[in-house]
Amino acid sequence: MDLKLIQSRLKKFAEDRDWEQFHSPKNITMALSVEVAELVEIFQWSNSGGLDEINDPDIKVQIEKEIADIFHYLLKLTDMLDINLEKEALNKIEENDTKYPVEKFKGISKKYNK
Amino acid sequence: MDLKLIQSRLKKFAEDRDWEQFHSPKNITMALSVEVAELVEIFQWSNSGGLDEINDPDIKVQIEKEIADIFHYLLKLTDMLDINLEKEALNKIEENDTKYPVEKFKGISKKYNK
Amino acid sequence: MDLKLIQSRLKKFAEDRDWEQFHSPKNITMALSVEVAELVEIFQWSNSGGLDEINDPDIKVQIEKEIADIFHYLLKLTDMLDINLEKEALNKIEENDTKYPVEKFKGISKKYNK
Amino acid sequence: MDLKLIQSRLKKFAEDRDWEQFHSPKNITMALSVEVAELVEIFQWSNSGGLDEINDPDIKVQIEKEIADIFHYLLKLTDMLDINLEKEALNKIEENDTKYPVEKFKGISKKYNK
Repeated sequence: MDLKLIQSRLKKFAEDRDWEQFHSPKNITMALSVEVAELVEIFQWSNSGGLDEINDPDIKVQIEKEIADIFHYLLKLTDMLDINLEKEALNKIEENDTKYPVEKFKGISKKYNK
Repeated sequence: MDLKLIQSRLKKFAEDRDWEQFHSPKNITMALSVEVAELVEIFQWSNSGGLDEINDPDIKVQIEKEIADIFHYLLKLTDMLDINLEKEALNKIEENDTKYPVEKFKGISKKYNK
Repeated sequence: MDLKLIQSRLKKFAEDRDWEQFHSPKNITMALSVEVAELVEIFQWSNSGGLDEINDPDIKVQIEKEIADIFHYLLKLTDMLDINLEKEALNKIEENDTKYPVEKFKGISKKYNK
Repeated sequence: MDLKLIQSRLKKFAEDRDWEQFHSPKNITMALSVEVAELVEIFQWSNSGGLDEINDPDIKVQIEKEIADIFHYLLKLTDMLDINLEKEALNKIEENDTKYPVEKFKGISKKYNK
């Protein structure tokens, strides 16, 4: 995936509308949380945990759009704060690998511990 | 960025710990919202909208880790729901381009309309 | 419940620490969302929807504290914005009564419509 | 405020529509987070932290309704989990009084520490 391309389009989109005045890290983080909540709303009454109870043929398209919105704000934030998303994502998996040892969880997590 | 690589590592990480039983789309979406809130917490009392008021030398590292967690859950969800993140991200920019015409917003957004 | 008493204690608490400088409606709303996410975190991996899977004897106490935090921020916000919480809560039930007619939902909601 | 009255009306409202099947503590908590996000959305682009930049005469009414929704879900949750909201709210203020000593924060919080 070409992150730089998406980030440069998002930057131009905001500049063209004079919206950068609103795009502090704080405000982008709030907007990110609002988009995630729109995804939460889709699943909030599901008892199965999935999509099979939701009587809405357009739900998949709606999810794709919410996920795009979430990703946009995440990319804007990493751009603004100069964060290397790929590197951090890979580092964090290694860190979690040490933090949550396989032998401690394998086969014993039928009931979860917070 | 190689999304498939990160997604396959995340998948193996969960499988190794028998955690897939908890990874419904609903639960992953909730976990995503919790990680975003940990980012919101960092900025909640900032009056400038940025990091300059936050007396914590480790704050940048903390933000990087929260962003990695958010991205992990977003990648898990797109993997589970078979969503092409790059395609959706680019499509949504084009859609927004039509929805928010430049001429309607350019130069008049000093006070924002929800 | 004596709302005014709780609100006046919350006000004094913030004044005593010079924290009112951070308590804009925006910041309080962010803090409210963070406290709610701490409650979401408790339930995020539950597949039953309840507490029975959570191996933590202190979980009930933790929930009580999160709910108190949520309520504090909600009361601060209503105080700052001069909102009558009881009146609005009752009005909204009446409004919802009209918006969601009983005859439309009774007996047919086994599968939910968003 | 008469909490029991509001809680009994909320209970009847859900029963009348057969919605109790969806009202697990987990699902109510998710719905609570979604309502809070609707309040966050109102403030997300405000740079002042308040309402003065928002060009919408109906904004106060909208806030009142979001706050009513938030309070409804909070009251449902305390009802379901048998939590005494008033007692917990007052206890938590006392606990915070000890946790955040006045002498540690008074006059020195111009720059905040997370």
